[in-house]
Amino acid sequence: MFGHNFIAGARSAQGNVTLQSVDASSGEALPGVFHQATVEEVDAAARAAEAAFPAYNALSPERRAQFLDAIATELEALGDDFIATVCRETALPAARIQGERGRTANQMRLFAKVLRRGDFLGARIDRALPERQPLPRPDLRQYRTGVGPVAVFGASNFPLAFSTAGGDTAAALAAGCPVVVKAHSGHMTTAEFVGEAIIRAAEATGMPAGVFNMIYGAGVGEPLVKHPAIQAVGFTGSLKGGRALCDLAAARPQPIPVFAEMSSINPVLVLPAALKARGEQVASELAASVVMGCGQFCTNPGLVIGIRSPEFEAFLQTLAARMADQPAQTMLNTGTLRSYEKGIQKLLAHSGISHLAGTVQEGNQARPQLFRADAALLLNGDPLLQEEVFGPTTVVSEVADEAELRLALESLHGQLTATLIAEPSDLSRFAALVPVLERKAGRLLINGYPTGVEVCDAMVHGGPYPATSDARGTSVGSLAIDRFLRPVCYQNYPDELLPEALKRTNPLGLLRLVDGEFSREAF
Amino acid sequence: MFGHNFIAGARSAQGNVTLQSVDASSGEALPGVFHQATVEEVDAAARAAEAAFPAYNALSPERRAQFLDAIATELEALGDDFIATVCRETALPAARIQGERGRTANQMRLFAKVLRRGDFLGARIDRALPERQPLPRPDLRQYRTGVGPVAVFGASNFPLAFSTAGGDTAAALAAGCPVVVKAHSGHMTTAEFVGEAIIRAAEATGMPAGVFNMIYGAGVGEPLVKHPAIQAVGFTGSLKGGRALCDLAAARPQPIPVFAEMSSINPVLVLPAALKARGEQVASELAASVVMGCGQFCTNPGLVIGIRSPEFEAFLQTLAARMADQPAQTMLNTGTLRSYEKGIQKLLAHSGISHLAGTVQEGNQARPQLFRADAALLLNGDPLLQEEVFGPTTVVSEVADEAELRLALESLHGQLTATLIAEPSDLSRFAALVPVLERKAGRLLINGYPTGVEVCDAMVHGGPYPATSDARGTSVGSLAIDRFLRPVCYQNYPDELLPEALKRTNPLGLLRLVDGEFSREAF
Repeated sequence: MFGHNFIAGARSAQGNVTLQSVDASSGEALPGVFHQATVEEVDAAARAAEAAFPAYNALSPERRAQFLDAIATELEALGDDFIATVCRETALPAARIQGERGRTANQMRLFAKVLRRGDFLGARIDRALPERQPLPRPDLRQYRTGVGPVAVFGASNFPLAFSTAGGDTAAALAAGCPVVVKAHSGHMTTAEFVGEAIIRAAEATGMPAGVFNMIYGAGVGEPLVKHPAIQAVGFTGSLKGGRALCDLAAARPQPIPVFAEMSSINPVLVLPAALKARGEQVASELAASVVMGCGQFCTNPGLVIGIRSPEFEAFLQTLAARMADQPAQTMLNTGTLRSYEKGIQKLLAHSGISHLAGTVQEGNQARPQLFRADAALLLNGDPLLQEEVFGPTTVVSEVADEAELRLALESLHGQLTATLIAEPSDLSRFAALVPVLERKAGRLLINGYPTGVEVCDAMVHGGPYPATSDARGTSVGSLAIDRFLRPVCYQNYPDELLPEALKRTNPLGLLRLVDGEFSREAF
Repeated sequence: MFGHNFIAGARSAQGNVTLQSVDASSGEALPGVFHQATVEEVDAAARAAEAAFPAYNALSPERRAQFLDAIATELEALGDDFIATVCRETALPAARIQGERGRTANQMRLFAKVLRRGDFLGARIDRALPERQPLPRPDLRQYRTGVGPVAVFGASNFPLAFSTAGGDTAAALAAGCPVVVKAHSGHMTTAEFVGEAIIRAAEATGMPAGVFNMIYGAGVGEPLVKHPAIQAVGFTGSLKGGRALCDLAAARPQPIPVFAEMSSINPVLVLPAALKARGEQVASELAASVVMGCGQFCTNPGLVIGIRSPEFEAFLQTLAARMADQPAQTMLNTGTLRSYEKGIQKLLAHSGISHLAGTVQEGNQARPQLFRADAALLLNGDPLLQEEVFGPTTVVSEVADEAELRLALESLHGQLTATLIAEPSDLSRFAALVPVLERKAGRLLINGYPTGVEVCDAMVHGGPYPATSDARGTSVGSLAIDRFLRPVCYQNYPDELLPEALKRTNPLGLLRLVDGEFSREAF
């Protein structure tokens, strides 16, 4: 059944179109054939998720937590063969994939913890006030429940953590929403292994068939997003792809929310005192961050800004030297390499941009590149500087003074991250920039590099457009569950018909907002 | 300056197009002329909100609470002249408007309480783990901040509570978002008085100019929603109008969220034992609910469903008699009356629908009407039964049995409310319907009528499409603030640069999620 679509707990291969996965390094076809889902299979997958929704959404948080924990265990049990397969499909090194497997499992466990903690339920109770004048107040109780089936589009660059069993799937399943995953064409064998792991976990924990579905193929995303059973979409990928899904979803008879994580250049501001104190070190760290994982991170630093000074010039020289030292690397797939080449060509062709380091981009690997842009491009909002070039490259720009720095930041589009490299004296001097950065980005860092994204309660991996399609969400960390929940209010319901979260005795032991005060009490 | 647009704390009348408000009962023009905002004035209003955003959003929750409290006081100080004006513009009775003034003021005070409680900030802290292997964890802190300027489109039917100083404005201002209100053409004088009250409150509490802006005129909504400074939209009105705004917002270079509360028929299920025990009483109560306020409520019960039985027939006869007794009433404006007439005509023209009570709809007032639809129309999803007819009318339908009742509910579109009229024995027998209702509506009632919407923490005035454009929001109650907030994460920020909500000493005394546990501690 390898390569068959996952529908309602079974496998299905009705269509005639087949696909093969390729070795990202050699380009040779990998063993196994994948069956592109037919229109009927897309429909069946969405209907299976819809059919599973009432039963799955009605399960206690504890039951869903057991399912997520079981997925984590199954993911960790995927062995060396699996790691080798992921490496072949993505050209990512084994250590990275091992780490990502652990991270993906832990992400499931974090959501299991959220389910057991129960604050995601948002329980609120306003008790009846029968004597109130001029009118009595009824008993009103609110909690949050799943929105319905969720379509998930995984990312090429995190074949585990942002894909079949990635953050969107984990958040949706935690929220009580069955999923239909569109398997990424860049790592279909990986998706197959992970899909089977999820199905094993679903069966072991007695989940309804249809809680997890996955379809293969090109062009299956559009009918999936348009399907009336689908109630929300999670996506990680390009601005073009994400925006196309947003437009499709907005044009449906019933529009649905799309949470697309798309394009960010992640500005890094290197401030004067830091350059004076440790310019060389910063240059080395920054070069390492730019080329890490062949630059294939949503949070890759794509724009470095400093204020004109001898120290900034020295920093640029070191940075250029470090970047020139970095080896070429194999990208996730040839499509990614072609995009990188195009992005580099555009930068090279721009009259306001000069090339500081890197050898001619040719061959089958991505070569690290460093560019320098006139500050005027930033200040005038030149679109090329706002575009993410996915790969091991970055653009530096020098502004004249503090006033220009502020203007440059104001001109930026929405970002996932914004970073200050700063000494304490820089922070006193530039404190007024922080509110500007807050309006531009979902995560603000000091003296770190944005490429590490911790999976925890406080993380925000999101930000204003075009970083994401909706700045009110995050696709990493436990708050990601909020995207797939909607509030419901029960008025004058007897205890036996209320959801557990709202019952008088507080059987889930929740911290609830009761008559305006937080309390764990029963009453 | 009467009738001039409110821009950045001043008044502006650059255009040549003027409008007059009319007496809803007599149709005669009311004194005073309103200046339609020019394209430049729309731009200026949005820019004023944008300019005010950084300073306003940076204010402490306490300062914003003082502003909302001051608005409440100013609203309550609007005297008998004001009440008389609102009554003339809307044909609503004085007692209703007095009550609505109190409700609107109390709504402001509820959001002031939310600001002081601070849970809207969603503070989360994951402290650094410098010793963690293989990588240390940085210090990560998350809170929620305003999304930016919000455009507000008020409703005709609540000239105070859902309009200039209504729930959307209160929620946006609480969230730290300046607003641009598009004054409703049906009650421009009311808007003028309320706008001045807000400006007085803003000046008295030292708010930045531009925190509140309001524009008059037809056609000014489109450039407002398209304006790049606007970051979210609140709307209450028709499905057609709301969907048009959603489509405009989705097609912007930067799409923005629209929270539109649009169309709901608010099904009421009268269950067998309740009919047996108190069918006559239910009929009287229901008739009163249908005609209350001339049926001009978003939560007006537009569909009544029962199971075939002699008791249901008897109930229908009583309901028909009660509806026939109800007097004609003046509607909010002639446009509303024309819509009502059209809706009634469509119902009369449908071969599957019969007319049970009501005199021929003619003249200047709306006459209460009762219709009966074949259950087949429900079961087959006939679109006419899913359309809200705004006014004093309702449609009853009789299903054969429990199975058909469930199918009928499954066929319904999204609703603001769903109501069970039930005895305890009904609730045991029909308990399985509750999850179906939960998927269909934002608020579920037992033995109440949906027309009263309490303003409190637990209220949900929202629901799946087309009740609203996004089931994840509410436009009544304190959770409404969530629509206008976005999360931001600070990584390794020193205490002095963190927002108050996230500082080590917890100066706001918040309940924060610290390392996965809720705590009010400083550390």
